Amino acid sequence: MFAPVYLDHNATTPLDPRVLEGMLPYLREQYGNASSRHEYGRAARRAIDEARQRVAYAVGAHPTEVVFTSGGSEANNLFVKGAAACLTPGAVAISAIEHPCVREPAKQLVRNGWRLREIAVDANCRVASADFQAAMAEKPAIVSVMLANNETGAVQDVGVLAAQARETRAWFHTDAVQAFGKLPLDFRALNGAGVHAMTLSAHKLGGPKGAGALVVDKRVELQPLIAGGGHERGLRSGTENVAAIVGFGLAAELAVARLDARAAQLAALRAELDAGLKAQGATIFAGAAERLPNTSYFAFAGLDGETLVGKLDRAGFAVAAGAACSSANPEPSRVLLAMGIESGLARGAVRVSLGTENTISHVRDFLAALQTTISQLKGLTALTS
Amino acid sequence: MFAPVYLDHNATTPLDPRVLEGMLPYLREQYGNASSRHEYGRAARRAIDEARQRVAYAVGAHPTEVVFTSGGSEANNLFVKGAAACLTPGAVAISAIEHPCVREPAKQLVRNGWRLREIAVDANCRVASADFQAAMAEKPAIVSVMLANNETGAVQDVGVLAAQARETRAWFHTDAVQAFGKLPLDFRALNGAGVHAMTLSAHKLGGPKGAGALVVDKRVELQPLIAGGGHERGLRSGTENVAAIVGFGLAAELAVARLDARAAQLAALRAELDAGLKAQGATIFAGAAERLPNTSYFAFAGLDGETLVGKLDRAGFAVAAGAACSSANPEPSRVLLAMGIESGLARGAVRVSLGTENTISHVRDFLAALQTTISQLKGLTALTS
Repeated sequence: MFAPVYLDHNATTPLDPRVLEGMLPYLREQYGNASSRHEYGRAARRAIDEARQRVAYAVGAHPTEVVFTSGGSEANNLFVKGAAACLTPGAVAISAIEHPCVREPAKQLVRNGWRLREIAVDANCRVASADFQAAMAEKPAIVSVMLANNETGAVQDVGVLAAQARETRAWFHTDAVQAFGKLPLDFRALNGAGVHAMTLSAHKLGGPKGAGALVVDKRVELQPLIAGGGHERGLRSGTENVAAIVGFGLAAELAVARLDARAAQLAALRAELDAGLKAQGATIFAGAAERLPNTSYFAFAGLDGETLVGKLDRAGFAVAAGAACSSANPEPSRVLLAMGIESGLARGAVRVSLGTENTISHVRDFLAALQTTISQLKGLTALTS
Repeated sequence: MFAPVYLDHNATTPLDPRVLEGMLPYLREQYGNASSRHEYGRAARRAIDEARQRVAYAVGAHPTEVVFTSGGSEANNLFVKGAAACLTPGAVAISAIEHPCVREPAKQLVRNGWRLREIAVDANCRVASADFQAAMAEKPAIVSVMLANNETGAVQDVGVLAAQARETRAWFHTDAVQAFGKLPLDFRALNGAGVHAMTLSAHKLGGPKGAGALVVDKRVELQPLIAGGGHERGLRSGTENVAAIVGFGLAAELAVARLDARAAQLAALRAELDAGLKAQGATIFAGAAERLPNTSYFAFAGLDGETLVGKLDRAGFAVAAGAACSSANPEPSRVLLAMGIESGLARGAVRVSLGTENTISHVRDFLAALQTTISQLKGLTALTS
């Protein structure tokens, strides 16, 4: 079987076999609906309660602050639309590099009388301090700044920003989907600094697709996105996906247990990768920012990213051009444009995002394949120009 | 291991082992994000495309009419809120026996200027014709009538109702979550009669929790509930839960293949069950209506349903009191109250919902356990009164 080397962990990660093992009983004999009042139902409820504790513990939250959803996109929509529905329309301020599942619901609010304010970032993909202050001076009611960017991996000082946003009395949210499992997360500390809600997803950290959470300070009033039977303290109705939630709990626990070792491993691989990329003449985006230890986002002047990704795929390396979640979109990355990257170079963007199962050989083999591919493409360019 | 006889298939069903087998590759080596443009991503995309065809084929729809969601509750919310967001506020008419995941989003619309009109049902849980006509005379913009009720199993003539609603020019939706897998469904025929959208769920028919669909006529304009990366033709963003969607496709295919045999099997078991219940003096709700072949909803005068369910659980039989999805609610069933059942009797309601793995021995053993339980409870009542 053809099994390319997987270097696209910010898009999704393999399900950890230990997590799958823990999920299987809930895909077999423990099939109850957690709302049912018989032994099958109670077993499912206990499993969900335990998973909620694991997730809460992994991010320094209280279990009652964890609202399970079908994933990160739903959690981001729940926060943005759910909080807005309980407020008088005003301004919603989001960074210019938010994931579409924050930006699009924020845009939907405009129909309901809200004003959308995007906050600029600098060339290193970091929220621009002056523009953040200017945005806060407009007294937004909702603020959302992601903890780590899915494309560049750039990390924001969310606690510092939230502290600066305090006097606006806005609800402050952070999308921590990419950060979880790669950086330590402490919701209690963030909450103390002024962060009121945080989005998580299971499938980015060795857990299953189909589970995520909004971790939310109970002072935040939210209208449910999915209303119905009143599950999740009335904030998210629908029969709980027990197996996926169980898997989320286990993945969260494993991710935290191995966080330091994993970060060191990934940082070593990424250092080798970055050195190789620079030696080949790549521009590494947000190269001067604090980045997730697993992510390198780069381009070669004059080479198209899509083409490069296609050729690397055929050479046996799975990497991304732009963000996987919006790769139906042929436009250059909004994140790079927001950073002021010229659109020609932005079109060349390729993302490598490493994972636990990657080795130094994967990185070296990838760099060799990249060099060969680039030489071929440059040769072609030379011939046709 | 204690394994009670499971008689609560309207709450959820065991995952068919053949379905799990088909899902496992997507929980193991085929872990790609379906939006990724490499081999892992393409494999996931192909699996989703195939599942979409299976689901569409199973319900007589075109694959492009199938919008995958995380389940039935999300699909119902997507229709109700998504359609309303694209219309001028007017009336939304729903039957009085809709599942909370239709009723609650409809109630949320009231905040946005909508008028909620509930349509009465008769003593057999069937939509009352005169009140339906009266509701249609009010020219609602959105109508929702479920195909089969989760508690009583009563089936509505949705095609006939939709035809009668035609001149309102309303968008007509039906929640077919309980019907799918138990009755033949033909969206093309329903659509021809005037039904524009239909909700499905995987876990009620041997598929996994975490997958459902809104089957929707493309003329219906919908605002996405979960906005973001633009998945599912822009109607439902978020990384697809590939394994669950694959399982949904397989379960849909299996359900249709065995529909006739299963309906005959269930009808035979249910006939035995109903005869036994009547012999013991039970009132069977909606007994004179066409019902799902697997469902009996009944009560014994003077006996509390919750108590009965608890005792039956300890005796080794898993059944439901009221609807599982709202069993956090101690009130008597809204469905029974809407049918005009006196609240004392309604508090006695117990639901048995049979499934493929049930046998005639399960039914007979259940009836024997029920008789014993009732005798004990009546003895207690006699002693304390």
